[in-house]
Amino acid sequence: MPIASGRAPEPTVSRLSLYLRCLRQLAREGVKTVSSAQMEARLGITSAQIRKDLSHFGEFGRPGIGYDVQHLLGRLTEVMHLDREQRAVIVGAGNLGAALVGYWGGFADSPFRIVGIFDNNFGKIGRMLWNLEIQDVRRLPEINRQLRASIGLVAVPGPGAQEVADTLVESAIRAILNFAPAVVTVPPGVALRNVDLTRELEILSYWAKQIDSLPGPAEPAPAANQR
Amino acid sequence: MPIASGRAPEPTVSRLSLYLRCLRQLAREGVKTVSSAQMEARLGITSAQIRKDLSHFGEFGRPGIGYDVQHLLGRLTEVMHLDREQRAVIVGAGNLGAALVGYWGGFADSPFRIVGIFDNNFGKIGRMLWNLEIQDVRRLPEINRQLRASIGLVAVPGPGAQEVADTLVESAIRAILNFAPAVVTVPPGVALRNVDLTRELEILSYWAKQIDSLPGPAEPAPAANQR
Repeated sequence: MPIASGRAPEPTVSRLSLYLRCLRQLAREGVKTVSSAQMEARLGITSAQIRKDLSHFGEFGRPGIGYDVQHLLGRLTEVMHLDREQRAVIVGAGNLGAALVGYWGGFADSPFRIVGIFDNNFGKIGRMLWNLEIQDVRRLPEINRQLRASIGLVAVPGPGAQEVADTLVESAIRAILNFAPAVVTVPPGVALRNVDLTRELEILSYWAKQIDSLPGPAEPAPAANQR
Repeated sequence: MPIASGRAPEPTVSRLSLYLRCLRQLAREGVKTVSSAQMEARLGITSAQIRKDLSHFGEFGRPGIGYDVQHLLGRLTEVMHLDREQRAVIVGAGNLGAALVGYWGGFADSPFRIVGIFDNNFGKIGRMLWNLEIQDVRRLPEINRQLRASIGLVAVPGPGAQEVADTLVESAIRAILNFAPAVVTVPPGVALRNVDLTRELEILSYWAKQIDSLPGPAEPAPAANQR
């Protein structure tokens, strides 16, 4: 994960989204102020870590009172650039691509807007997917000059993923979410995260069976959880 | 992530899926033997780590020759229990649940089989989704006695996720993949992994903007793979 500016380390950024979610829930509950200890109880992240992360953005809770929920919510929304529209394109108009268009299209209040979907299959190009016409991925660099998306979702099979990522980079996309089961590399200055659904299921397959085959009555074994 | 038996630590298991993918690719290429150094070059995982991980399963490459690709592929497939059908249920028949049914239904050669989809919405229960009838999640513990799924996918909105996870646990599900944007806890002996799509996009939102606001002309950063 690249550090695109010196402002905050990547693990901090990846936690900000969790803080935001917690603050949104607190706001819905009508809570006015929250201490880092209360956030720790909800998130399982230590209060020391929370205070350190938030101090990167000049946010310091008042001793004995804590953080102002609405203020911090607004500040983190701004820091994460979620106070403005974020335009994204999807490459791959198969099952997964179609699913992603439908999924994000369902959130009216989300800052993320899918503005284009692309494929290399001439049988698909020109067809409609939800309210978007599937376009030729070979024209993505040109078309994105109009669309001005900065986020790209890769939803193609593994072998095509690197070429798609290269095309996205060439199209001035600066943040890529890769769903393809493949290792993809991007140049410095481009952010990349991977969501590997097959891998997640394969890992669970190991544990599902391990637990099945425990000796004795079908009692759960001691465990900790991923987060 | 739980350690359900003493056999292998969780980070090792999470890498096995990557080794498997690499081995499948090597097999497709007709490669007969592979060294840990060659795997390092493909995966970006150090050869020392690879050797250590594989030694958990009694697999030792021969010095100067490496690992037999077909043998290791077969062995890891077995270790991960991917040589047999893995039955899964999905809770949540919304956009995401429908997408997941379609997505995994598309892989004929996958060991994962979606055998049931459940919802709590009476407007959805009884309707067909692909080839599955949407069933009442309240009946999941009873229905899973017949379905015998051991994996459960949570595809409901955040606020309902914990209750769904509890129902899955009550239904003898032993491995849960949570897509809901919520912190879910499970008892010891149940494996849990999280795929948080909204969070991934929010994290990218931060970087997308950070990169936009770098000083200098609005030129793409130097790309490693320009064509």
